[in-house]
Amino acid sequence: MINVAIMGYGTIGSGVFEMIVQNQDILKDKIGDDIRVKKILDLRNFPGTPVEHLIVHDITDITEDAEIDIVVETMGGTNPAFAFVKECLLKGKHAATSNKALVAAHGTELLEVARENHVNFFFEASVGGGIPIIRALVDSYAGEAIEEITGIMNGTTNFILTKMDEEGEDFREALNEAQDLGYAERNPDADIEGQDTCRKIAILASLATGKEVDYEYIYTEGITNIDKTDFEYAQKMGTSIKLFGSALIEDDKLFAYVCPVMIGKPHPLYSVRDVYNGILVKGNMVGETMLYGSGAGKFPTASAVVADIISIIKHKDENDKMILSQTLTKSYLPKEKVGKESKWVTFYTLLAEINIAK
Amino acid sequence: MINVAIMGYGTIGSGVFEMIVQNQDILKDKIGDDIRVKKILDLRNFPGTPVEHLIVHDITDITEDAEIDIVVETMGGTNPAFAFVKECLLKGKHAATSNKALVAAHGTELLEVARENHVNFFFEASVGGGIPIIRALVDSYAGEAIEEITGIMNGTTNFILTKMDEEGEDFREALNEAQDLGYAERNPDADIEGQDTCRKIAILASLATGKEVDYEYIYTEGITNIDKTDFEYAQKMGTSIKLFGSALIEDDKLFAYVCPVMIGKPHPLYSVRDVYNGILVKGNMVGETMLYGSGAGKFPTASAVVADIISIIKHKDENDKMILSQTLTKSYLPKEKVGKESKWVTFYTLLAEINIAK
Repeated sequence: MINVAIMGYGTIGSGVFEMIVQNQDILKDKIGDDIRVKKILDLRNFPGTPVEHLIVHDITDITEDAEIDIVVETMGGTNPAFAFVKECLLKGKHAATSNKALVAAHGTELLEVARENHVNFFFEASVGGGIPIIRALVDSYAGEAIEEITGIMNGTTNFILTKMDEEGEDFREALNEAQDLGYAERNPDADIEGQDTCRKIAILASLATGKEVDYEYIYTEGITNIDKTDFEYAQKMGTSIKLFGSALIEDDKLFAYVCPVMIGKPHPLYSVRDVYNGILVKGNMVGETMLYGSGAGKFPTASAVVADIISIIKHKDENDKMILSQTLTKSYLPKEKVGKESKWVTFYTLLAEINIAK
Repeated sequence: MINVAIMGYGTIGSGVFEMIVQNQDILKDKIGDDIRVKKILDLRNFPGTPVEHLIVHDITDITEDAEIDIVVETMGGTNPAFAFVKECLLKGKHAATSNKALVAAHGTELLEVARENHVNFFFEASVGGGIPIIRALVDSYAGEAIEEITGIMNGTTNFILTKMDEEGEDFREALNEAQDLGYAERNPDADIEGQDTCRKIAILASLATGKEVDYEYIYTEGITNIDKTDFEYAQKMGTSIKLFGSALIEDDKLFAYVCPVMIGKPHPLYSVRDVYNGILVKGNMVGETMLYGSGAGKFPTASAVVADIISIIKHKDENDKMILSQTLTKSYLPKEKVGKESKWVTFYTLLAEINIAK
């Protein structure tokens, strides 16, 4: 019996619980053991629901429970997620998270703590929801010199831009529609200002370079200045406007940015519409590849967390040998941010050059 | 020092050799050890080339060499590839292959032999070249009930269909062009008759169901009957014609086919042009995802082989726990093939129902 604890029973956390219940036969088949959610940490009580008896309110109920092998962190934010995950790792529990803010801010330290305690810290769900981009970078493209990662990695902004492009809506109309459909939060700044994409490209750039990339040094521009006129011009040029997060790696330099770009039909990311995500990876041997799918949402994101749980169980006796936990190392970063506001940025001149030399 | 032997020094085999040389620093970084190609089995001698001193002509030079940890099989075909790979596994050597004919015909047996001998048999490069579809099915979608896998998995036929669609060429013209460019072989039957795609979808269907799927029971129709008139109709309907390999899984039934289909612009595979491949996977939790990239070619395919080599080294002490080597099991198959020639097949009525119940 594998015992899992879920910290944070919101959209993703409940998705993980429901997937473990619904696909339990498949999971048992794959891991050769039963898996159950033993405890759920949340401030709420969920009376009258199937999880009522699993709820705990005190983190020590999880950290001090020797039966719990794996914790899932789906709280979001860094406080108290960071302290809770760190404590679990210190207590010898493996962890899987969907929390890009946590990984972008504290990923290196948590990987170090995990390694020291012979457990794993996995975060497939933190970027691209159900798109297996982390595993692709860590396993499938492990032998590649990665030259570029460029993605549409935020479903909210892609939905808004698609509505503006295809139905001629203006930014406010499209944002309101996204909020009505539950695709955008009441306070949508993290999405529309590009901060969500910024944290994701920082995580991917870190994995591609093997160096910690501080997201604060990445030039980040959202979509709030895009208006109807921009789309009229874009359409006349046979292009569409997408919010890209991109990392370009040349020799020992990393150029990373988040900003809206115009791309034409031949671009592999052109057809990524609506709330979908697409992430293009260019390696020196494999050439251009692209992964596409639901970048957010309850079950696609839960699926990535469950994939991490399965990996943890498959490899539980060789934790400290996983390359994932040896990849990120501290790096020297430039002292000053470079970059000024510009609607159509000329990338190389505005970007911070981040030195990734060893 | 990790010692690798390459069996078959053609396009893919030489790509693997060159990638190991060119990306040696990256590989050393990832695996923490040096990796070298110690021997290459081929009928030819390659005098005056950098591999001249590595060439051997006798398989026992590899099977009896205790220093060789991993063999790469890039010969193609089943004879003598099957006997050679099996002998290497029996001698306790891990194996990675790019050979879909070998995997489709003997995958289950080779996985069993590998498991019994506590080594791994990997075959990421056998489907989709540099597209990490095998690892996605085995690791990333391990917790999913897979409902559908549909792919454009043959670059040669996709190139021909793209030329017919976009430049109005007829089949023969497009085939000749593909041959001139080296995309199609002088005897192109395995590609244009759909047999290559058939073997690939059989491999993917096996991984998705956990049952051996015999490719001989898959309805297979190539593109040789597609003519200009078909494309004229398709274009009037706003569609394009693609060669699909598809596996649909419903309850305990598998429906698999290879044939040309008309698809419209909203289909995620519509924009897969030229020699590129795209593979769509639908799971009960993750929804629709798609992987896109170079489905063939020297370096993309070599990249997938090298990814397998890295996985083998990372997990070398836990070989028999890898889920990949526990997935395929023998299955009861229908005794008679179902399916008749039909240009636009109505799938469900023509397909063999393959019972995958336990």
